Amino acid sequence: MKAPDLGIKIGVFEHGRRNSITDVKGVKVGNVTLIKGEAVRTGVTAIIPHEGNIYKEKLLANAFVMNGYAKPIGLTQVKELGVIESPIILTNTLSVYTAADALTDYMLEQNKDVMSVNPLVLECNDSYLNDIRGKHVKKEHIFEALKNASEDFEEGAVGAGTGMSAFEFKGGIGSSSRIVEIDGKKYTIGALVLSNFGKREDLTIAGVPVGLELKDYPGRGKSGKGSIIMIVATDLPLTSRQLYRLAKRAIVGLARTGGYAYNGSGDIVLAFSTAQKIPHYQKEPLRIEALHDARLSRVFKATAEAVEEAVINSLLQAKTVKGRERHIRYALPHDKLVEIMKRYGRLEK
Amino acid sequence: MKAPDLGIKIGVFEHGRRNSITDVKGVKVGNVTLIKGEAVRTGVTAIIPHEGNIYKEKLLANAFVMNGYAKPIGLTQVKELGVIESPIILTNTLSVYTAADALTDYMLEQNKDVMSVNPLVLECNDSYLNDIRGKHVKKEHIFEALKNASEDFEEGAVGAGTGMSAFEFKGGIGSSSRIVEIDGKKYTIGALVLSNFGKREDLTIAGVPVGLELKDYPGRGKSGKGSIIMIVATDLPLTSRQLYRLAKRAIVGLARTGGYAYNGSGDIVLAFSTAQKIPHYQKEPLRIEALHDARLSRVFKATAEAVEEAVINSLLQAKTVKGRERHIRYALPHDKLVEIMKRYGRLEK
Amino acid sequence: MKAPDLGIKIGVFEHGRRNSITDVKGVKVGNVTLIKGEAVRTGVTAIIPHEGNIYKEKLLANAFVMNGYAKPIGLTQVKELGVIESPIILTNTLSVYTAADALTDYMLEQNKDVMSVNPLVLECNDSYLNDIRGKHVKKEHIFEALKNASEDFEEGAVGAGTGMSAFEFKGGIGSSSRIVEIDGKKYTIGALVLSNFGKREDLTIAGVPVGLELKDYPGRGKSGKGSIIMIVATDLPLTSRQLYRLAKRAIVGLARTGGYAYNGSGDIVLAFSTAQKIPHYQKEPLRIEALHDARLSRVFKATAEAVEEAVINSLLQAKTVKGRERHIRYALPHDKLVEIMKRYGRLEK
Amino acid sequence: MKAPDLGIKIGVFEHGRRNSITDVKGVKVGNVTLIKGEAVRTGVTAIIPHEGNIYKEKLLANAFVMNGYAKPIGLTQVKELGVIESPIILTNTLSVYTAADALTDYMLEQNKDVMSVNPLVLECNDSYLNDIRGKHVKKEHIFEALKNASEDFEEGAVGAGTGMSAFEFKGGIGSSSRIVEIDGKKYTIGALVLSNFGKREDLTIAGVPVGLELKDYPGRGKSGKGSIIMIVATDLPLTSRQLYRLAKRAIVGLARTGGYAYNGSGDIVLAFSTAQKIPHYQKEPLRIEALHDARLSRVFKATAEAVEEAVINSLLQAKTVKGRERHIRYALPHDKLVEIMKRYGRLEK
Repeated sequence: MKAPDLGIKIGVFEHGRRNSITDVKGVKVGNVTLIKGEAVRTGVTAIIPHEGNIYKEKLLANAFVMNGYAKPIGLTQVKELGVIESPIILTNTLSVYTAADALTDYMLEQNKDVMSVNPLVLECNDSYLNDIRGKHVKKEHIFEALKNASEDFEEGAVGAGTGMSAFEFKGGIGSSSRIVEIDGKKYTIGALVLSNFGKREDLTIAGVPVGLELKDYPGRGKSGKGSIIMIVATDLPLTSRQLYRLAKRAIVGLARTGGYAYNGSGDIVLAFSTAQKIPHYQKEPLRIEALHDARLSRVFKATAEAVEEAVINSLLQAKTVKGRERHIRYALPHDKLVEIMKRYGRLEK
Repeated sequence: MKAPDLGIKIGVFEHGRRNSITDVKGVKVGNVTLIKGEAVRTGVTAIIPHEGNIYKEKLLANAFVMNGYAKPIGLTQVKELGVIESPIILTNTLSVYTAADALTDYMLEQNKDVMSVNPLVLECNDSYLNDIRGKHVKKEHIFEALKNASEDFEEGAVGAGTGMSAFEFKGGIGSSSRIVEIDGKKYTIGALVLSNFGKREDLTIAGVPVGLELKDYPGRGKSGKGSIIMIVATDLPLTSRQLYRLAKRAIVGLARTGGYAYNGSGDIVLAFSTAQKIPHYQKEPLRIEALHDARLSRVFKATAEAVEEAVINSLLQAKTVKGRERHIRYALPHDKLVEIMKRYGRLEK
Repeated sequence: MKAPDLGIKIGVFEHGRRNSITDVKGVKVGNVTLIKGEAVRTGVTAIIPHEGNIYKEKLLANAFVMNGYAKPIGLTQVKELGVIESPIILTNTLSVYTAADALTDYMLEQNKDVMSVNPLVLECNDSYLNDIRGKHVKKEHIFEALKNASEDFEEGAVGAGTGMSAFEFKGGIGSSSRIVEIDGKKYTIGALVLSNFGKREDLTIAGVPVGLELKDYPGRGKSGKGSIIMIVATDLPLTSRQLYRLAKRAIVGLARTGGYAYNGSGDIVLAFSTAQKIPHYQKEPLRIEALHDARLSRVFKATAEAVEEAVINSLLQAKTVKGRERHIRYALPHDKLVEIMKRYGRLEK
Repeated sequence: MKAPDLGIKIGVFEHGRRNSITDVKGVKVGNVTLIKGEAVRTGVTAIIPHEGNIYKEKLLANAFVMNGYAKPIGLTQVKELGVIESPIILTNTLSVYTAADALTDYMLEQNKDVMSVNPLVLECNDSYLNDIRGKHVKKEHIFEALKNASEDFEEGAVGAGTGMSAFEFKGGIGSSSRIVEIDGKKYTIGALVLSNFGKREDLTIAGVPVGLELKDYPGRGKSGKGSIIMIVATDLPLTSRQLYRLAKRAIVGLARTGGYAYNGSGDIVLAFSTAQKIPHYQKEPLRIEALHDARLSRVFKATAEAVEEAVINSLLQAKTVKGRERHIRYALPHDKLVEIMKRYGRLEK
């Protein structure tokens, strides 16, 4: 269940058919959820940017680090060369190296003569619910998440989101999309977040101080730690410089949900465009298509909206999870939420 | 009239005595307002960071550029050396060079043997109401604004804010402050903004979609162009690295008012700390006091709140202005605003 | 007289016809030299990137700040939008605001309906020889330098270089170029520097420790202060991201002359490509041509070489100047230099 | 054998007792060299910044990326928080994830209650000599390198340097140090590099074009690919902002050896100061000691020199290695080098 299903409207743009990052043609997402015993609550989410060989056909991309208390893998090269050349893996903080190692194997397997590749792995810390020190993510889980990737995928307490918390509720994977029309042509901006941040009292939905209203709802604890990873995909023709501008606007969406990028957070945005493929090598000059910057204002707003709703969806889609040391993260209660939104005049019919 | 005076509460922290940047001890603000004939609607706002010789006693500082379609003066050196060494002048886009030239003279006059100084001048474009090409700001206006500086100063359509627009209403100068208590000690974070950005429909006050509600209120035109300058002052002991982190959080406050940092905007934050003075030269190593980063989360939230309210105050304090080519920017109507806020359940008693 | 004229070979690439930044088609340079009485030793150098209306037909560009103890004007917008939209003015530190004001007028005059423009002004501090506090550069000098611009221009102690010092010798304006062949097509990289940095003992020419050899040559004083501005122009099709990469390689050339980017220096590189023009506005997506990054290694080396020789040429072209407070900066003595180079086996026949 | 042992003097500062990064008190280095069969030519080098628990007592630090075609691990957090909290591991490109995983285990073992740590791993690509796709570095090799760490360590074709190439000669680990006296107090700057870059013809030693002279010396092939990692340690009291400035000057040293930061290179500098320890948490404000920036010029020059000599030492210390596909990288021939240096007048008695 996503925000519109509850009658909650985030922003003014239309969303795509699935209201998901996979509304951007070619993008696929796969999850592996690891739940074992009392304390294994973790997993892997893979985002495949296009269906071809990504090393041979790279995509223009860029990243913005709002707060860098984080262990991302691969951003240095993305910023230098302006492209991504691998799928993107999300998982827990202590499993990023296993994930990157597996992703490297996956890329080497596809590219037999390659001696170097730049795997992209991003993380949040799920140690409130998960035995993170146990490092339960293994290389096969990465391969499986990549194989699972599909246009239809679950959100909430699944994949990398299995053990994540947001606003002291259950967080995790959330996605949304927005359609922007430019000169009569429709383009899609899709966002997928791994949410794991926020104090209860900060939670804001469509401007309503939901967190303050639910201050006394059970399940609080270890607030304000944690991070958020935001992936933005689009079929708009944009250069890596422009995708950096786009990535920054994800923060606008994040802020509107109650995100302050607290000290301990790793708040990172990765944005890529599927509009054109950049070969690993080409003798002749490239011809890069790019919207004029003067056309970007509405694109920026739609990006912020997609991210804002993706964060809210990560809460709405998540179910209650009990984990390590009997910690519980409750699902955001839909009934109470609807009641609050109504009271504040923000429920659509 | 500021937000709390209307019963509108932005955030959860207490504000300081004046609810202004001048709640940070030593900070003073001075305005010069230029209104002549039908088309001169501009001015100058000076922020004096402390009462001494700022060149000889610099302050730790840093800047964050959210969007750089802008003509700031002085940021390169601030970012390299981590200090400011002059007052800060705000004015219109085409007058920054006159202002910087005057500010240089002002500093050279105070420091007879100095051959180089780094003046700080930031701007927005007031050409909707002002004959900006006429360059009506002269050097004497800078000196006068500096001389006018006081702990008490006007906000709204005054000084650099005289001709500015925000959300297709009248914008300009707005200020606010927040008190954070750390280990039993109270510190102040003050924000001053020069607001000149936003489409009407984007305006959000304490989460309420005021702009959509006032979509048909008269005065729309040339929306979504323009910029915002945000000055953050604090007496918290922070390094320039930490002030960069602080400066980034101003964007959280901005986002919550409906700021998307549109393509054409120059959205710039300058943050400084008055906690300690850095001599121009010193033989012995400096001893810099700094909060541990682990203490900064609440500081970040308070910064976002101060900036959010400063933006709203810039609207609330501004009066209707008629200017160039009979353009009118109406004051945000207080009565309608109160009615809307009540309807959305966001008016405090 | 430039390095090759003395038999000194910097690097391995061929230079262009003029061995100057104006070997890049369309680029022109103009000087105004101000010498009056005993203490006025300053001036203006204007670089015109192409012959059309630069505001309407912008060029892709980027900047790298090696050390930011500097007062550059215009870089924030260049970095955000990846283009330059005005000529580039070089002058002394305290005259940058007058220069930017004049350059704004010049652009407004050409573009009658424009309300905002981003003038580019860069500086070094010539106060050793010049009465810099007297601010002797006036607006008319900027207009004159722009009008003077030509493919043929003087180097050395002229224009902005009139009062500059390098390695405690006379420095100033120097230029050089390199030709790179890519797939049978010849491209040009041109560099122009305003040199005003370095301690005598650091001076290195084609690897030879000339500064140590000339340690006792007269004229030392106030060493190690000062800055260098490096302008790199090319007709290679490069994006602004790639031009940032190029700009960084100017530092390689600088380092090889004995530049350490001392604390007080403003070491700034601005690189632009004349290969394509970016309109101020365009409805349809742009098509940007760009070399594949894999082709850039030789381009990087040629850039470093062009800058290295431009620095040396700024010394070789400069004549002895006596100025403020009877300070003298001697020209680097050609005869002694030739003798030293021969002794170290670095003189070509 | 290091440069001074051959009579080659790089720069003007004195070096420390060992002419090594371990002249900085507390710093230790350990190698594990993996040579097996015909194609395993790789290894691990560990740098331990101080003898205590680095997670609990962090060091101020910063990084500069000259060229980011690279897979560094840990830099994002270093840049945000200005500290390192783990030892530094160097290894080959495809083994960084195994190394980071092992380093995480090592840190978790020392810190039983910790759920997150930021391991630092940097790399070059040794695939010319090494079967890099075989991933021969295992976790136990990381632990062993950490255990091996000592003030005395081997340089050249050892540890992470086992399979590296520089200027088409054998490269690898090289180290050097410089002493700077400030107000009568002596401080040490130490550099350690992992060299794996450069075309033969670019090699420059103390300004002499050694590479051109040895153009026809056997062993050329696959030139100009590869990277360099530069670690700078110092006991100077510097903030992370100042350490960023320091890190940038490593590029000056690199440039003087013939480094152009070619397209495919990952040229990364990590600088840290041992002067003070930053606790993981502290309630009271920190008191950070820092040299005034005005004292840094000589520090910058000494840093450049230390890095320049470290690169040369990495060549001088390396022995010829034969590896994968019968590729051979010859040691730089000392006898020929001495002869060339003499011919160019650069050999000290």
